Amino acid sequence: MSKTFTAQNPASGQSFGPEITEWDQTQTNNAIKAADAVKSKLAQTDPTKRAALLNAIADSIEAQKDKLAETAHQETALPMPRLTGEVMRTVIQIRSFAALVKKGGHLLPVIDLADANFQPVARPDLRKTQQPLGVVAVFAASNFPLAFSVAGGDTASALAAGCPVVVKAHPSHPNTSQLVYEAVVSAIVAQGLPKELFAIVQGANPEITHWLAKAPEVTAIGFTGSGLVGKLLIKLAAEREVPIPVYAEMGSLNPVFFTPTALAEKADDLAKAAMDSALLGSGQFCTKPGIIIVPADSNGDKFITQVKEYVAAQKVGPLLNKGIATRFTDSTGKLAKSAGLTVISGTNNSDGFGVTPTIFVVDWADVKNHHDLLEEHFGPTSVIIRAPFDQFLTVAKAMEGQLTAALHAGATENVSELVNQLTQLAGRVIWNGFPTAVSVTAAQNHGGQWPASSTHTTSVGLDAIYRFVRPVVYQNFPDNQLPAQLQNANTYGIERVINGERSTKSI
Amino acid sequence: MSKTFTAQNPASGQSFGPEITEWDQTQTNNAIKAADAVKSKLAQTDPTKRAALLNAIADSIEAQKDKLAETAHQETALPMPRLTGEVMRTVIQIRSFAALVKKGGHLLPVIDLADANFQPVARPDLRKTQQPLGVVAVFAASNFPLAFSVAGGDTASALAAGCPVVVKAHPSHPNTSQLVYEAVVSAIVAQGLPKELFAIVQGANPEITHWLAKAPEVTAIGFTGSGLVGKLLIKLAAEREVPIPVYAEMGSLNPVFFTPTALAEKADDLAKAAMDSALLGSGQFCTKPGIIIVPADSNGDKFITQVKEYVAAQKVGPLLNKGIATRFTDSTGKLAKSAGLTVISGTNNSDGFGVTPTIFVVDWADVKNHHDLLEEHFGPTSVIIRAPFDQFLTVAKAMEGQLTAALHAGATENVSELVNQLTQLAGRVIWNGFPTAVSVTAAQNHGGQWPASSTHTTSVGLDAIYRFVRPVVYQNFPDNQLPAQLQNANTYGIERVINGERSTKSI
Repeated sequence: MSKTFTAQNPASGQSFGPEITEWDQTQTNNAIKAADAVKSKLAQTDPTKRAALLNAIADSIEAQKDKLAETAHQETALPMPRLTGEVMRTVIQIRSFAALVKKGGHLLPVIDLADANFQPVARPDLRKTQQPLGVVAVFAASNFPLAFSVAGGDTASALAAGCPVVVKAHPSHPNTSQLVYEAVVSAIVAQGLPKELFAIVQGANPEITHWLAKAPEVTAIGFTGSGLVGKLLIKLAAEREVPIPVYAEMGSLNPVFFTPTALAEKADDLAKAAMDSALLGSGQFCTKPGIIIVPADSNGDKFITQVKEYVAAQKVGPLLNKGIATRFTDSTGKLAKSAGLTVISGTNNSDGFGVTPTIFVVDWADVKNHHDLLEEHFGPTSVIIRAPFDQFLTVAKAMEGQLTAALHAGATENVSELVNQLTQLAGRVIWNGFPTAVSVTAAQNHGGQWPASSTHTTSVGLDAIYRFVRPVVYQNFPDNQLPAQLQNANTYGIERVINGERSTKSI
Repeated sequence: MSKTFTAQNPASGQSFGPEITEWDQTQTNNAIKAADAVKSKLAQTDPTKRAALLNAIADSIEAQKDKLAETAHQETALPMPRLTGEVMRTVIQIRSFAALVKKGGHLLPVIDLADANFQPVARPDLRKTQQPLGVVAVFAASNFPLAFSVAGGDTASALAAGCPVVVKAHPSHPNTSQLVYEAVVSAIVAQGLPKELFAIVQGANPEITHWLAKAPEVTAIGFTGSGLVGKLLIKLAAEREVPIPVYAEMGSLNPVFFTPTALAEKADDLAKAAMDSALLGSGQFCTKPGIIIVPADSNGDKFITQVKEYVAAQKVGPLLNKGIATRFTDSTGKLAKSAGLTVISGTNNSDGFGVTPTIFVVDWADVKNHHDLLEEHFGPTSVIIRAPFDQFLTVAKAMEGQLTAALHAGATENVSELVNQLTQLAGRVIWNGFPTAVSVTAAQNHGGQWPASSTHTTSVGLDAIYRFVRPVVYQNFPDNQLPAQLQNANTYGIERVINGERSTKSI
């Protein structure tokens, strides 16, 4: 008999909604095989058709906007405005890939025509394009029930690349996942494509992770979640007969540095803004500022005093699920007992999976006694480190890789060495700002150094698509045997690089 | 006391030249640390200066052209014209990266200006560029003493990216390696940069591989060689505290398919051309056609008859070193004893590390009994598979990943399904040609599916540079705190993408 599970409302801690059947290994493997069997149907769509598919998916999700936000609200207890915004972010992400694909941005044709005089030897006709990898397994995140979930950035970029997708839905929001799945599949079918191109696997069974990572038809993995599961996926992927890339985004401390100059005039405002960023979404963002470095001087102390005052009145929404709430309470409880730490507590939230915001303050000299402080603690907590300003570079050098790093400094302050170190550490460096809120755009990079990310790629923004394609070059092919994007005529009308020059012309 | 070794001349099997000191672990680690300590000197060179450095290195190598070819000839027994050509390929490779760097092709600035009306939320100013990873360890190949060695494609692309390089010189050509090292370093010093940016580690000790792969300062590995060592490197890199990418090119069978139509008129010519490609450089190319598939019909038989006739008179140069010669003799000797195989032998070369070219013929139905046939055998050997034409797709599907795959067919023949399968298999597909000779150009792709390559990247051609950079985005930075390529003025005058449009203008 099949096992079932239900959603839980974090605000009450109560189960609700329909019994959802856990997928078993056979179902999972069948879905992957079915996706693989039809992959060429998607791979062979031309740019117009691929873009139309993506736009249809976006429209189909947008049509369910209110129902999706409401369902996600029940399953996550995240505020409604955040969730309606997240539906729109999801939709806009997909549309931005549609726009890229329509211009041929997934194909990137590079053509070097035959050249008998090429040095050191004659050059054949070489025409390169990108082609989709094949079935992609996506692991949905707990903390973004829409934008990093069933039809989130990983799925959008993989479909845009031309890869079928099998998503492990997050068991914290199975009903939202099912609704999004239905919206996506109805759009796929309406576009005349096989529904098997997309599937979600429901269940809380940790074996699902193994089934997906080991399936021979899976060619790449997109993952957003904990380092523990991310590292397991990397290990499983490496042990395969044919290893595959794992694009894992595994969280981050996102250090924020404040120079004495930055704090001199507005320590109070910056303290509040830092806490707003740390407690946003109950501290459940991968870009949460988990480490805040202030100078060990009167300005730093003013910042800390303001944090104490401000946080005392702060109450955050319940956490996403019982496991996250329990781990938060355990880890902050353990840290609070450590010697040398100051603990700043906010207002308790005793509803459902509610917790108490907890901020720690520690001197840099004492951090070496508390290695836990330099690890990610998911939820409404952050660590303020008091460090002499001349030690900021040392602090930065002591850190592991991060998704982001922020620096508050005076516009003409000489901080180039510190900025340079932050770029060694993180994929996004922020000036006089906070890391939460990630714009989905061409220039974005949401990925950093290990252990924040497993590769030097981004999971947000247009470049995410290039994780799921690979180059193939055609040598001396007759025009009629080439894929359309490489044929002389350029029937797609897309931009190509021909003998080193960009052009939309035919050859 | 330090251990020493000497070069061997494959044509005589005799040692010659100076005693070369094996590097120990301390020397190796010191070279890596020294490279890391000065990495910013290279990273901070502007495009003009970086390009000037690369051109100076190319000039310095070219100035030694004859001496390098002569030394490499003594150490490899490869023919002089091949080696003078290889010096020029090495030089041209470096110059092509100089040209790319001068245009800012290593920086790839993408700028999205702040936009208060951006959806779903206001966009900050985001300015992305690529930055070098840090010290790169390169493992030189045995079979290209210049173009895939000390200053070969991996080194050229890593230096172009702005990464210091530590090369494990191949012990089969230590004197060539030393000469190239000196040429590179003299150019680096003449450009006013620290000589520690480049180092070679000499020695045959397998521990060197471990020292390089485990050094914390090493940020990426470029490797060309056997699957055995490539997989070891991947394992070592994954076990590090901070895992790093391994760009390994591990050889390939490079299947060549002949349709009945292709053979109908010129089976004889194609048989000779196929053997010329298989025996070129004594079969010591990673692009050697190691598997040749002919139809099990009269045309295929005509091809095989011609192979027998042609190969009998073929004598090849000695192999690169004793290990390669011994493994070749052992593996072909073992295969020759298998039932169901036809063995076609060429003319024996008994000089030094000389061997006998050995071609095998087998029916597709018997291949399953000889799994060894579908593995790479380095040296002058190839396997001709007789398969019914309607089984060609099955043959292609049974193969592991390859660097290249070639198809000889009629220009209007309907072979799209087979071509599509070959693109799933390989990174370069060739029409009516052979895989040897790899043009160094923007459209090139020298990389394929596992186990031919460890990643979906190329080790030849301009895109090789992108293996050694990573994206960093600057959010809301004051203009004066940005790297030059992202500042409004565009002082480098390079192409940038600004709000989605390519431009060389200032902002």
